[in-house]
Amino acid sequence: MSRPEAGKPFSIAAVQLSTSDDREENFAKAERAIDEAASKGARIVVLPELFQTRYFCQREDVDFFDLAESVPGPSVERLREKAHAQNVAIVASLFERRAAGVYHNTAVVIDADGAYLGKYRKTHIPDDPGYYEKFYFTPGDLGFQVFHTKYGAIGVLICWDQWFPEAARLTAMKGADVLVYPTAIGWHPDEKESHGAKQRESWTIVQRGHAVANGVPVVTANRVGFERANEREGGVEFWGSSFIVDAQGQPLATAPEDDEAVIVAEIDPSASELQRRNWPFFRDRRVDLYGDLDERFLSDR
Amino acid sequence: MSRPEAGKPFSIAAVQLSTSDDREENFAKAERAIDEAASKGARIVVLPELFQTRYFCQREDVDFFDLAESVPGPSVERLREKAHAQNVAIVASLFERRAAGVYHNTAVVIDADGAYLGKYRKTHIPDDPGYYEKFYFTPGDLGFQVFHTKYGAIGVLICWDQWFPEAARLTAMKGADVLVYPTAIGWHPDEKESHGAKQRESWTIVQRGHAVANGVPVVTANRVGFERANEREGGVEFWGSSFIVDAQGQPLATAPEDDEAVIVAEIDPSASELQRRNWPFFRDRRVDLYGDLDERFLSDR
Repeated sequence: MSRPEAGKPFSIAAVQLSTSDDREENFAKAERAIDEAASKGARIVVLPELFQTRYFCQREDVDFFDLAESVPGPSVERLREKAHAQNVAIVASLFERRAAGVYHNTAVVIDADGAYLGKYRKTHIPDDPGYYEKFYFTPGDLGFQVFHTKYGAIGVLICWDQWFPEAARLTAMKGADVLVYPTAIGWHPDEKESHGAKQRESWTIVQRGHAVANGVPVVTANRVGFERANEREGGVEFWGSSFIVDAQGQPLATAPEDDEAVIVAEIDPSASELQRRNWPFFRDRRVDLYGDLDERFLSDR
Repeated sequence: MSRPEAGKPFSIAAVQLSTSDDREENFAKAERAIDEAASKGARIVVLPELFQTRYFCQREDVDFFDLAESVPGPSVERLREKAHAQNVAIVASLFERRAAGVYHNTAVVIDADGAYLGKYRKTHIPDDPGYYEKFYFTPGDLGFQVFHTKYGAIGVLICWDQWFPEAARLTAMKGADVLVYPTAIGWHPDEKESHGAKQRESWTIVQRGHAVANGVPVVTANRVGFERANEREGGVEFWGSSFIVDAQGQPLATAPEDDEAVIVAEIDPSASELQRRNWPFFRDRRVDLYGDLDERFLSDR
């Protein structure tokens, strides 16, 4: 099924982690997970969102800006060593300090030879109870991006971006072999029983929909475990369930909802090529009729 | 859970039909299905794509243009009577003759008092083996539309449109309480065993994804049954499986894959209002970054 113009197959890993209050411990755990992914054959490894720290956005506190760092900076340097040592490309989510008062939720891509390829800044910033990200993160201004690693072209998006078909589409149009989403999403404990299954299914479906609509595999690496900002808060139970789906939205690997995991699957760009030949949505997009997508809304009823 | 600004709940039906070579028989069957839907409480009824005839697009034959009609025209007049008699709004798919050499795949909306509200012309036109629609249908030039019936605002799209998130988004942005898709999709018999389940699941998932991404219910009315253009063709087994999902993409009603059916479910615009309060994607769309969606592709690798 190999196609002459498509890239070669590669294995990719989604790393699902919990975090403690110990930043060094979290970083070391991520490094061990990268080792494990490499030992399972992965050539690209995706870490969960903000893997070095607790999900601090559960409350608004200016002191948490101290957690931010330069990008590139010390974390990138440390990940470059690991990438080179293991011959794996790494997608890592970092809390970027750009300037005083300008911080971003940023993902970097490091190639398998240790080269720093660049960064993507989270475009869509959520703000709902327990996820006060608009307080911390300036909306990304680098647009949608694809990074050309030794093993494949990676379209990088982050968490809340996953609800926006526009983001998936534009990243696919830039030539991504795969879309990856470092993620931190979970249940409010008091909603889990009544709404939890539906919430997670909506999350899975909308991303599998991006795979189908764009004929591109999707990899999502989520956080796992319960975290609570303080005694007054209900906390968040990060629901894990990281997954890899193929260009038709079919599951290739899925992580549990309640434990750390390193899942690995092979991505074959030839399969996307074939998928798009059979279902040629890019051929038929009516680019003459999409101008209003840059409007906020079209009805004020 | 009623919200002051949202519309009132209404029941909607998806009608799943097979067709014979007898146009009058097909039309009468659709009328009986509308009666059945009304008796089940539906106030809006969605018929499958091109319900009056066999799916003639299985082969290219200029004689089939004889099947086209003026829109509005005789079929609209007949449906207006039925709508008025049953107090139901109807979405019906027709083969429109606009001018010599200009034909469209068109859906009309008739209000529950029999008023003709207008038409939508299929925007995205497929062309793949067994679905030679580019031969018959000029791509729609009326843009994306919502029709305000007595019972709710209906966003009308048609079949192949369902693979395009842009179409769902733009129609939702026009204020639709529900997106409806008259449809004719099925399996090639020689692919059904190997690919059939995945193909249908991709189709379901991408549309449920539109519901999630837009916080809007989706109703799809598909054709059912085996049709073959002639002895030389493999034919198409239309896979039925019409469905109604809520604003979170959760199934409310699903039809079988191998039989005619009238499925009905209640749509509550208050639920969309609540869904969008909790998951405010429209608030966070980055309309400053979507300009390239009117490009064909952004990478020529």
